[in-house]
Amino acid sequence: MKKKFKILVSNDDGISSKGIVALRNAMLELGEVIVYAPHKQQSAVGHAITVQTPLRIEPHYMNGELFGYAVTGTPADCVKLAISSMLDEPPDLVVSGINHGANVAINVLYSGTVSAATEGRILDVPSIAFSMTSFEPEDFSYAEKVAKQIAREVLEKGLPPGILLNVNIPAVPENEIQGIVVTRQGISKWNDIYERRIDPNQREYFWLTGSLKKLDIEIDSDVVATHDNFVSVTPIQYDLTAYDFLPHLKTWKLNGK
Amino acid sequence: MKKKFKILVSNDDGISSKGIVALRNAMLELGEVIVYAPHKQQSAVGHAITVQTPLRIEPHYMNGELFGYAVTGTPADCVKLAISSMLDEPPDLVVSGINHGANVAINVLYSGTVSAATEGRILDVPSIAFSMTSFEPEDFSYAEKVAKQIAREVLEKGLPPGILLNVNIPAVPENEIQGIVVTRQGISKWNDIYERRIDPNQREYFWLTGSLKKLDIEIDSDVVATHDNFVSVTPIQYDLTAYDFLPHLKTWKLNGK
Repeated sequence: MKKKFKILVSNDDGISSKGIVALRNAMLELGEVIVYAPHKQQSAVGHAITVQTPLRIEPHYMNGELFGYAVTGTPADCVKLAISSMLDEPPDLVVSGINHGANVAINVLYSGTVSAATEGRILDVPSIAFSMTSFEPEDFSYAEKVAKQIAREVLEKGLPPGILLNVNIPAVPENEIQGIVVTRQGISKWNDIYERRIDPNQREYFWLTGSLKKLDIEIDSDVVATHDNFVSVTPIQYDLTAYDFLPHLKTWKLNGK
Repeated sequence: MKKKFKILVSNDDGISSKGIVALRNAMLELGEVIVYAPHKQQSAVGHAITVQTPLRIEPHYMNGELFGYAVTGTPADCVKLAISSMLDEPPDLVVSGINHGANVAINVLYSGTVSAATEGRILDVPSIAFSMTSFEPEDFSYAEKVAKQIAREVLEKGLPPGILLNVNIPAVPENEIQGIVVTRQGISKWNDIYERRIDPNQREYFWLTGSLKKLDIEIDSDVVATHDNFVSVTPIQYDLTAYDFLPHLKTWKLNGK
């Protein structure tokens, strides 16, 4: 590749998480890297943005060297703030992650990691979200390799407007990986359980818990692919229009006539 | 209608906003109404859910009567908590709003109002998000009529799995309304500007501001429809897969071969 690419890195686990260090390392082999990431854990914030309070930015150091910038906001805030106000020119690529935990099926909606990438794509920059399927991944070496490989493809080929990639990498040794496959978002959902507890003042409170109901059986879903040790690459979009239902909805008597 | 319908009402402007009072009034004409809504303003939280702190629920009174339940969480939390843990059986319908401000184009992604309805649909309940195009709507009487009309249609006809409705109502007198049309999500985006300020301790902070870049010119978009004083009804979905791009992505050399 001839040009020196500029790559913006963010995440939702916070700027000091292991996953973002791995992703930054992978991207350093492709170009110049700038990191804007939340100052603390922001899992499950979805596409939240901060409109009612101001944001602050602090430089973040690792081993005495500037690693990037910590933002007191959400993943989407980090990308919005960096691209609209901090960088001299838009980056060539936005990458988010590497998330500690899979972002497959319905989790794509709740994911701050995906939303950081989505925000990049909204701002006209090709974007990729990366996640590993373990909440406590130990070894990022294969994930780094995959991130570099897929990022290089996107830098070379671009992505259509409004479309980004959501990549999930099985947390298994490299020799157990079966390959890289293109998938669709699965249909599995959470079985939500709120645990009711009583505080020291005898008032009740509720903690969200629960488990993923595995409803996916088809090989081309992100859930089954990652379960079968394939790296899953799903193209996603932020146009939520249900085009298939549009013609039918037009036959409804919405005007009450 | 024969059956006594159960309708869950939520929003993102908070349980004491004008819009949710209007929506509850409209729904009371269709069945039994239960309100679970955020205890305070939650605009732009997107599909955030609360996983790291517990939630509390407080009864909320209006004019000395029980209005509903205030939840110390996001709009999606309210719907999740109500359906999974508080109600004896799932409601027949989830409605969210009436939001103070349009949720059209890219705002659909940022909207807590839409996310409350999306959460209902994820939990297998037909759902509708309602918004008015003014941030300070004065007169909800026409919006109430529209909400009742569309909710009745959905209660009668149902909605396909995974699909909900996003309804935007122009904040103009009823005699200026041109009709109700089925639309798609527009492509207009924000022109983000972060205003840089200096605090009393000489440290800088950033406030998000900006304006919507109107990129939509086609009559079937939610942006143009509401601008032209049509009520806009957009079917939306939470399967974000970019199906049109799937076949092309499969031709990429993702395995690096």
